[in-house]
Amino acid sequence: MSIHEECGVFGVYSEKETDVAGLSYYGLYALQHRGQESCGIVVNKEGLFYSHKDLGLVSEVFSEPVLEGMPQGTMAVAHVRYGTTGATNRSNTQPIEVNHQKGKMALAHNGNLSNAYKLRSELEMQGAIFHTTSDTETIAYYITRERIRSASIEEAVEKAMKYFEGAYSLVIMSAQKLICARDPLGFRPLCYGRTSDGVYVVASESCALRAVGAKLIRDVNPGEILVFYDGQVKSIQSTHIEALNDDTAMSNIHEKYKENKKLCVFEYIYFARPDSIIDGVSVHASRVRAGEILAEEHPADADIVIGAPDSGLDAALGFSGQSGIAYRMGFIKNKYIGRTFISPTKKIRVDGVKIKLAVLDEVVRDKRVVLVDDSIVRGTTMGRVVKLLRDAGAKEVHVRISSPPFLHPCYYGTDIDSENNLVACHHTIPEICDIIGADSLGYFPVERLGELTGGKGYCDACFTGVYPTDIPDDSGKDRFEQPLKQSR
Amino acid sequence: MSIHEECGVFGVYSEKETDVAGLSYYGLYALQHRGQESCGIVVNKEGLFYSHKDLGLVSEVFSEPVLEGMPQGTMAVAHVRYGTTGATNRSNTQPIEVNHQKGKMALAHNGNLSNAYKLRSELEMQGAIFHTTSDTETIAYYITRERIRSASIEEAVEKAMKYFEGAYSLVIMSAQKLICARDPLGFRPLCYGRTSDGVYVVASESCALRAVGAKLIRDVNPGEILVFYDGQVKSIQSTHIEALNDDTAMSNIHEKYKENKKLCVFEYIYFARPDSIIDGVSVHASRVRAGEILAEEHPADADIVIGAPDSGLDAALGFSGQSGIAYRMGFIKNKYIGRTFISPTKKIRVDGVKIKLAVLDEVVRDKRVVLVDDSIVRGTTMGRVVKLLRDAGAKEVHVRISSPPFLHPCYYGTDIDSENNLVACHHTIPEICDIIGADSLGYFPVERLGELTGGKGYCDACFTGVYPTDIPDDSGKDRFEQPLKQSR
Amino acid sequence: MSIHEECGVFGVYSEKETDVAGLSYYGLYALQHRGQESCGIVVNKEGLFYSHKDLGLVSEVFSEPVLEGMPQGTMAVAHVRYGTTGATNRSNTQPIEVNHQKGKMALAHNGNLSNAYKLRSELEMQGAIFHTTSDTETIAYYITRERIRSASIEEAVEKAMKYFEGAYSLVIMSAQKLICARDPLGFRPLCYGRTSDGVYVVASESCALRAVGAKLIRDVNPGEILVFYDGQVKSIQSTHIEALNDDTAMSNIHEKYKENKKLCVFEYIYFARPDSIIDGVSVHASRVRAGEILAEEHPADADIVIGAPDSGLDAALGFSGQSGIAYRMGFIKNKYIGRTFISPTKKIRVDGVKIKLAVLDEVVRDKRVVLVDDSIVRGTTMGRVVKLLRDAGAKEVHVRISSPPFLHPCYYGTDIDSENNLVACHHTIPEICDIIGADSLGYFPVERLGELTGGKGYCDACFTGVYPTDIPDDSGKDRFEQPLKQSR
Amino acid sequence: MSIHEECGVFGVYSEKETDVAGLSYYGLYALQHRGQESCGIVVNKEGLFYSHKDLGLVSEVFSEPVLEGMPQGTMAVAHVRYGTTGATNRSNTQPIEVNHQKGKMALAHNGNLSNAYKLRSELEMQGAIFHTTSDTETIAYYITRERIRSASIEEAVEKAMKYFEGAYSLVIMSAQKLICARDPLGFRPLCYGRTSDGVYVVASESCALRAVGAKLIRDVNPGEILVFYDGQVKSIQSTHIEALNDDTAMSNIHEKYKENKKLCVFEYIYFARPDSIIDGVSVHASRVRAGEILAEEHPADADIVIGAPDSGLDAALGFSGQSGIAYRMGFIKNKYIGRTFISPTKKIRVDGVKIKLAVLDEVVRDKRVVLVDDSIVRGTTMGRVVKLLRDAGAKEVHVRISSPPFLHPCYYGTDIDSENNLVACHHTIPEICDIIGADSLGYFPVERLGELTGGKGYCDACFTGVYPTDIPDDSGKDRFEQPLKQSR
Repeated sequence: MSIHEECGVFGVYSEKETDVAGLSYYGLYALQHRGQESCGIVVNKEGLFYSHKDLGLVSEVFSEPVLEGMPQGTMAVAHVRYGTTGATNRSNTQPIEVNHQKGKMALAHNGNLSNAYKLRSELEMQGAIFHTTSDTETIAYYITRERIRSASIEEAVEKAMKYFEGAYSLVIMSAQKLICARDPLGFRPLCYGRTSDGVYVVASESCALRAVGAKLIRDVNPGEILVFYDGQVKSIQSTHIEALNDDTAMSNIHEKYKENKKLCVFEYIYFARPDSIIDGVSVHASRVRAGEILAEEHPADADIVIGAPDSGLDAALGFSGQSGIAYRMGFIKNKYIGRTFISPTKKIRVDGVKIKLAVLDEVVRDKRVVLVDDSIVRGTTMGRVVKLLRDAGAKEVHVRISSPPFLHPCYYGTDIDSENNLVACHHTIPEICDIIGADSLGYFPVERLGELTGGKGYCDACFTGVYPTDIPDDSGKDRFEQPLKQSR
Repeated sequence: MSIHEECGVFGVYSEKETDVAGLSYYGLYALQHRGQESCGIVVNKEGLFYSHKDLGLVSEVFSEPVLEGMPQGTMAVAHVRYGTTGATNRSNTQPIEVNHQKGKMALAHNGNLSNAYKLRSELEMQGAIFHTTSDTETIAYYITRERIRSASIEEAVEKAMKYFEGAYSLVIMSAQKLICARDPLGFRPLCYGRTSDGVYVVASESCALRAVGAKLIRDVNPGEILVFYDGQVKSIQSTHIEALNDDTAMSNIHEKYKENKKLCVFEYIYFARPDSIIDGVSVHASRVRAGEILAEEHPADADIVIGAPDSGLDAALGFSGQSGIAYRMGFIKNKYIGRTFISPTKKIRVDGVKIKLAVLDEVVRDKRVVLVDDSIVRGTTMGRVVKLLRDAGAKEVHVRISSPPFLHPCYYGTDIDSENNLVACHHTIPEICDIIGADSLGYFPVERLGELTGGKGYCDACFTGVYPTDIPDDSGKDRFEQPLKQSR
Repeated sequence: MSIHEECGVFGVYSEKETDVAGLSYYGLYALQHRGQESCGIVVNKEGLFYSHKDLGLVSEVFSEPVLEGMPQGTMAVAHVRYGTTGATNRSNTQPIEVNHQKGKMALAHNGNLSNAYKLRSELEMQGAIFHTTSDTETIAYYITRERIRSASIEEAVEKAMKYFEGAYSLVIMSAQKLICARDPLGFRPLCYGRTSDGVYVVASESCALRAVGAKLIRDVNPGEILVFYDGQVKSIQSTHIEALNDDTAMSNIHEKYKENKKLCVFEYIYFARPDSIIDGVSVHASRVRAGEILAEEHPADADIVIGAPDSGLDAALGFSGQSGIAYRMGFIKNKYIGRTFISPTKKIRVDGVKIKLAVLDEVVRDKRVVLVDDSIVRGTTMGRVVKLLRDAGAKEVHVRISSPPFLHPCYYGTDIDSENNLVACHHTIPEICDIIGADSLGYFPVERLGELTGGKGYCDACFTGVYPTDIPDDSGKDRFEQPLKQSR
Repeated sequence: MSIHEECGVFGVYSEKETDVAGLSYYGLYALQHRGQESCGIVVNKEGLFYSHKDLGLVSEVFSEPVLEGMPQGTMAVAHVRYGTTGATNRSNTQPIEVNHQKGKMALAHNGNLSNAYKLRSELEMQGAIFHTTSDTETIAYYITRERIRSASIEEAVEKAMKYFEGAYSLVIMSAQKLICARDPLGFRPLCYGRTSDGVYVVASESCALRAVGAKLIRDVNPGEILVFYDGQVKSIQSTHIEALNDDTAMSNIHEKYKENKKLCVFEYIYFARPDSIIDGVSVHASRVRAGEILAEEHPADADIVIGAPDSGLDAALGFSGQSGIAYRMGFIKNKYIGRTFISPTKKIRVDGVKIKLAVLDEVVRDKRVVLVDDSIVRGTTMGRVVKLLRDAGAKEVHVRISSPPFLHPCYYGTDIDSENNLVACHHTIPEICDIIGADSLGYFPVERLGELTGGKGYCDACFTGVYPTDIPDDSGKDRFEQPLKQSR
């Protein structure tokens, strides 16, 4: 898989001082799948911030002395970050912390503003300087700018949101308040819950709430701002969507937003953890359903169904259930391969794919196999996996993909390969089938995506090219493409 | 699981200099499941040894500069080690390297000598000093002692083996030769193969051969010594089993050894990687078969079958296939939890099991569940897992275990909890069922273990108490129990 | 010594690509005495920046792989930083790098703006956000703001300098130019030179030029901006000192500035390395001269003169030469004590001073000793050192201090202890003599400081309270006193 | 300087549990000049050993968590080690810890056995294996072998000492006793003292006693064994020198040993810290005296005397005092250059010597300079230093060396360059003078060495070739010269 999302966010609010760093630590463990490049936690103890963040996994960045060195406090904001390619840039670690005229603020962000370059250029024209290359700093700037002329931090957040277009799920901490906000189209998930001790927890996915013993209260609504302060939770529904500026009763606004929702459908297909419930729909169930639909749409005459670990397993089970073809385990994935794995060089004739993935020969030998995976990007990896199966004696390999073909870029935080590299942009399905060496190939039908998301609003722009916001004019983007480089 | 094995061994022999360190690195990745405490590689370049070993996973110990800093060579020996409890003792890392009168030797060992204390005491009476607390050093001593009065290293190994009782799969490297040896009862696996470039590879499991592109030639026979030297492989069958010292033709000895074989049955049940083939039997197939037998012996009236990840998944699939009850994924295991995970302290009310393992509520809710796992040790963990299922709404939980109950200590390298802690030593099956909160409980029948191992000889002493060798007199053992402690 | 200065700066400009990172590395080694908390290097290769910076000494931050990983380039800017107390804050490491509307900039700063809070507040009122707590970020902001409406970076620097009051020696790098600037009063040193290969080097002290084989060309003049670009060096003399805005001929401005110069006299007394030449005066010679003057002003009837290592040695030699009393080595300083030295706790009865400093008993026994040091802050350390001498058998101890008593805070980058702790603020000389246990005590006479600085303009505000600029109104300062804290 | 000694040893014995690790830590800081490659501490708490050792300086190996993690105890043994060239071999770190038949032992050693290869070969012929390449392991073996047939550890030490030839100052710890021993010729220093709390401390040099607040009781006599046990100190004078096996009264033996003493004269000239008192003679005074004798023997017509820092400073002061030529500081040594300093490569034209050592131009310009240093090995470094002086404008440079010329190898622990590289082996004094570019050159006269050592017995074999023991037959040595190499 070469599709990635940007981040996971996490926040804690407690009336009494408690181990908010510890809760964040376990919360980040549950969100680690959303980003493995860097992570960080900022604790608020009596209005002072204590932070630790660095490049690396949660397990690498937070050693026992580091975690024990963080004080008890009443609030925390935390973040895991996915980073593109080799630009392992320490300065882009989050949460970012800023000092401004009325105090300080820590901010964690998941998503991508589609008008980030425009907003940043406007700030720069006014003399602003930027330490990072991420749009999170732009968000912080706009909130700060509004803060100066606002009575409260939440008012500043609400005002700033009028400028933002695109995807953002935010957790913000000031000296006294914890705030979370989700963009009006709800591109990225965000939810909150409470522990039996009365501690409020905000997270990108519900799996992180459960990990720390918190019960899911509900998803944050699109366009909603929640303020945790003085033991209370206050909801503000931002009202600046044009469609809503008439006499719509306040009580109807929530519903209106829900209808307009554009949750990234790839959260269900790949990003989120199967045990999360997003906007009321189980991710695991959604994936099993995708497999069932695949079996209906692209049946195969085969002996066994296997999933590509780990992302294809749920859909494979669904395919098996619907088709009646036996579900089998066809691969062993090496679970010790991580960020620091050194790929074989040309000095040595070792196939990197074989180290990561081993076929169970006796399972696939002489069998007609249905192989289910979540997506095809360039086709190279899938081609090697199909070859592994054939080398192990599979008679036929029928590939089924639980998403439609990728055809368009995403401006909301999903890092899809460039169009040049997307195999589906340049080839017909028979051609792709040929490229990957499969006997047949079936993609999930784009028109049935609603069945995976509970029928609610979702964004499928990467498959359809129909974008829910204006898309950015990319002139000027290049300036950011070659940012301050960090040696090592 | 609190059952552990000691180690994995790996060796490379090439006529021409090549990247033997790189091959070892990928080989160790494939063997990492056999030991996560420490690892090491020793390279032989023109008779000189270059080594690197330390505490940590392969990914931690071998960074890119370290691996690139190791020279090309003609041979290498490598090791991953499992360490008991907190005694993360750097001095016990392997391969051990020794200088002796006729040169030097590097040695990697998997297994446990049942007469280790006796052998060590004899050496100590002669003034020997020991730097480590492991029996590997004792093995090195005996080989060295024989080396002085032997014409070759292989002769020394053969002579030394007469003293050893118990389990040992060895890879030994001298200035000129690579040697591997497996104990006469074949307690631990050992096999070898060859790459298309003609490089010989020795490994604890065949999965490591495949990882580096080597084809399995065969398992090393019980009591066999293989010598890789001068581009040749020479086999020596040690002949000192008493039953064989008559006029048995040399050609029959191999067969005799195979009949006497006592391979640890737990290699099939839990230790080995599912894609390995040990003594001709697929580990994965063996586990699926265990599930089928469980379904025959302990059927359950249930709606779904789930496996405890990852070790119960294969058997769960077998149980489902045999019983016709639907196979489902019930758990998400957090794959980022590793050695450095900091367990929740009492400062914070977080359940460690929930962070490691999340239930898929909608899968188990209102269902009668068969839960398959490989073993029960103390019962505590299983109790918590059953509770997770019930909290998620499971109506009934029927636990099925793919091994018989643990009742006896192992002297051959498996680290089973002390008898005091083994729940099966002190409770009947209904009592255990009660302790873990299950509706029913079924263990694998000890008399059918042969069906998992291809009928060949195996050791089941931990279940039966019938030991294939003399068991050690433990007097004097305490001296080693409190060894040199390493702060940190 | 509890007196510290803030930093050292370094810059390289070469027409051809060369190992500018290596030159910076050796330059920072020579400037390490100016700051041991953190350091950093930013390399410019074809307009792209490659940086590495972290907490620690040059030897700790720049390992061989890190240094080798930095590319060859045409420019570099580098920095060593001294940090107050325990706030080992990674975000304050320099050079800081910023992205702005017209490109990017790296900036290294030595000194302290006396109107920093005022400038920062003005920016914050306009919505600016700050990532660090240092005034270097404020400097960067002002330059950036001017950059937008300026034709060149040097023009922006010149305009921005009109807002800055206080001390700043800057090295600034843009995509194409290297720029250095010294404040109009020349509080902190800055000089430049050239290697035989034609590479230009800028540094806080000339010792760093010599270290990398560059020959000192001259000091940067107060108020001067140097631009290294296109193989040329261009000098701009900023003209905004009010006294100069009349019809003074441009050629006289340099001289005017030199007359107005206010170089920190403590650079000669303590900060700078003895082999540096600052504004034409040898630091070593200045210190020897201080000892001579002390001998004239405060003669002592004694047998030997010893210096407190290392900062009192030069002046002790001068005292000996002038007085004719024999110079001796009285102390051995442990040269391995560094940042990570763990001070004795109450668990153990060990005197920390004795570990750092050992007396040579046979040198001082039964002797009347003159002890020369550069300053007294609280008097505690000096008291312990005098006691060491008495315990070793010294009959008399006459303390001579090569600076006048500290009485006032510094706003230009010298970190003097708070007035509450300065012993000279609360006690007469006889009282201090009593506190430190000396037989006599003599300070350098404030009216003769000009003899140490070549008669040129210098700042002695910390001794006299006469400040060359407005001093800051500290209201609002507290907000910065408790910045974002960094756990670790 | 390319002359090095092997190590420093340290031991603590207390009746009550105390922070023996902390005392060792500060003791090692004071001995760090004797070895910078690796260090270690082993604590004895209730008979169990807790150890930490690694490559690096004391400040690097013992971080605060590591030191705090070591328990309080009643005894400790500690070590700093100098390592030859690049063989930074972790397995050679000391103290070494061994398990043997009667318990365990930790051992720290300074010196070198001249019959090490012979002893080791004998052990190897009996089947012994060696993990390290140091003779310390051989010493441990012999003590262990004797321990088996001895009633006590001290008896075993005494018996083993009969086999050892050459230099050894040992600190040995068993479960119950702390033992120290010095070889019969007293090649290396060793002394002991006591703190006001009654804690006994053993150290290579008295500076380490003072550092931890202990008062020097006396040097350990040549051939003496001290046993700290049960609150007592017991002295055993080993009696196996052949000259003493007649009817000499026990009371005369000490004196006899003292007469025979062969303390390494280079301890006074270079190795030891100036504030140490060795066998009753102040190291600092000895060095000053060397300078005085040089001035008598090799006067110079010059303006100033300067010392090469740090090792030439004391002798320079002596030369100045005797000759009446003014003492000056001519060099600034960069005190931040350490183990991790990266030497300039050919990519960059920077002179490494200039980074380490800076001349004070105005001190030496137009002066006739006497430069005093402790030794010349290859002449290369001295040549560069003389050139630095000339480049700075010195009119004449007269080199005076406070030791005689090195001509012979040392078998007792001093690592002198190979004879091929020793400039004095191949050149006359006028030739060397020419090679280093000096105007004149004078070495310390070998016949007056006794004036530096209080007239007592000393070893000057490296100057004279007259060895106090048999010298080793080096056949077989090569085997050890290319030991197990450690990558990184």
